[in-house]
Amino acid sequence: MDNRPIGVFDSGVGGLTVVKEIKKLLPHESIVYLGDTARVPYGNRSEEIIAKFGLEDANFLLSKDVKCIVIACNTVSAYVAEQLRDELSVPVFDVIRPAATAAIIESRNHKVGVIGTRATINSGAYMKAILYGNRHFQVTQVSCPLFVPIVEEMEMETSIGLYVADKYLKDLAKSDIDVLILGCTHYPMLINSIVSIMGNNRKIINCGTEIAKELKAYLRKNSLLSDTSGESKYYVTDLTDRFVQIAEMCMEEKIGDKIERINIG
Amino acid sequence: MDNRPIGVFDSGVGGLTVVKEIKKLLPHESIVYLGDTARVPYGNRSEEIIAKFGLEDANFLLSKDVKCIVIACNTVSAYVAEQLRDELSVPVFDVIRPAATAAIIESRNHKVGVIGTRATINSGAYMKAILYGNRHFQVTQVSCPLFVPIVEEMEMETSIGLYVADKYLKDLAKSDIDVLILGCTHYPMLINSIVSIMGNNRKIINCGTEIAKELKAYLRKNSLLSDTSGESKYYVTDLTDRFVQIAEMCMEEKIGDKIERINIG
Repeated sequence: MDNRPIGVFDSGVGGLTVVKEIKKLLPHESIVYLGDTARVPYGNRSEEIIAKFGLEDANFLLSKDVKCIVIACNTVSAYVAEQLRDELSVPVFDVIRPAATAAIIESRNHKVGVIGTRATINSGAYMKAILYGNRHFQVTQVSCPLFVPIVEEMEMETSIGLYVADKYLKDLAKSDIDVLILGCTHYPMLINSIVSIMGNNRKIINCGTEIAKELKAYLRKNSLLSDTSGESKYYVTDLTDRFVQIAEMCMEEKIGDKIERINIG
Repeated sequence: MDNRPIGVFDSGVGGLTVVKEIKKLLPHESIVYLGDTARVPYGNRSEEIIAKFGLEDANFLLSKDVKCIVIACNTVSAYVAEQLRDELSVPVFDVIRPAATAAIIESRNHKVGVIGTRATINSGAYMKAILYGNRHFQVTQVSCPLFVPIVEEMEMETSIGLYVADKYLKDLAKSDIDVLILGCTHYPMLINSIVSIMGNNRKIINCGTEIAKELKAYLRKNSLLSDTSGESKYYVTDLTDRFVQIAEMCMEEKIGDKIERINIG
């Protein structure tokens, strides 16, 4: 048993969709969340800056005595997961590998679509992870760089959100992929717009759900599960009313009084 | 005469639209530009973070021995111009006051529209500056939070850019304002989409043009003009191919080999 919290970080609010899945599956775990809201978004930045910010985020979580770290950001997972595993003293989980594994298991025709930020798509991380698992897969990647601003602006289900989703996804909707990976932790908040374009016939993989399953298996196998009441604490590098509003919508829970602003970097 | 460079900073690439206007009007001036591309955008962040980042940006320019500083960012101008004037040892110019003055001069019916980021619009800085100049003006403010990501994603004249412009501006287009202030230095790059919604009958104020005129008058009056060949140097906190591409499009000039990445903050 290990009652220390699980550390989770993301560039902004998107990682809360991962926290929600972890809390659902592991209600006795405490979570320390960091959202680097003063420097969000990461998805259009260079590899060098993504590495620098990711390491600063992880080091903050370590200072909170976490038992492991979940990189709830696909962009950081794509570029820096290996580096963080090498440098940090606790186990580090990324969101890409579990989602890629789930896609391999779920696909019948071996044709998978992946959507993500420009940096995640350019890294080819999902394609590599899927082809590493099964080289006979065909992976179609589409970058959707305005989806994160659209979520942060709460335009997910407005005509703007729908219009942009249609522009980005209409070719993918015509293709014969049978699995779609939401390769960005913001995208579960766009699920209704995405499904309205993609239809209901494809399996949609939410990387939050998959990482939560992996985390549960790992903690159980290593006797590291908690038996606390699962208290969570949320840190951000910039705190605005809008962040609290989106965070609570995303978590479907009042968390405003558990959020604290801190400086990193 | 003072051959030291003029310092100009912005959160990202938008301030280059100001640099372009300054170079047009003051071709003998050298310019040191800083774009804080590792932390762009500022327009949705809190006042506290905007102040912190703005001060760090200005201090970097001071380390380059600039003779004055132009805040080529409406969000920073709206929140921190006074603070920077108090704290810095060189004259500090913001982009809001000259644009507000131009609007007062240009409007026939005393009805002015202002578009900007959420932070700029929420600050009410343009409204205050216009009403301070003439309290009989009627100012209509509209925040357009997706315009900056749309420019950074080069979707300015795609159907996405046009669609979002229509959503944000259609009510303003129906109103009887006769002057529209582009209250964000990114927005001149959206001018075609903006005009296609707003029509050709309104005077459009570009804050880059106005600040360049004010700067020229100030330097001349104080005998601070340069007689150099006007060499410019560009610093960014994150350097991606995409930044160079947008920067050169914006400047209508090849500047790739004059851009250097630095760390601040």
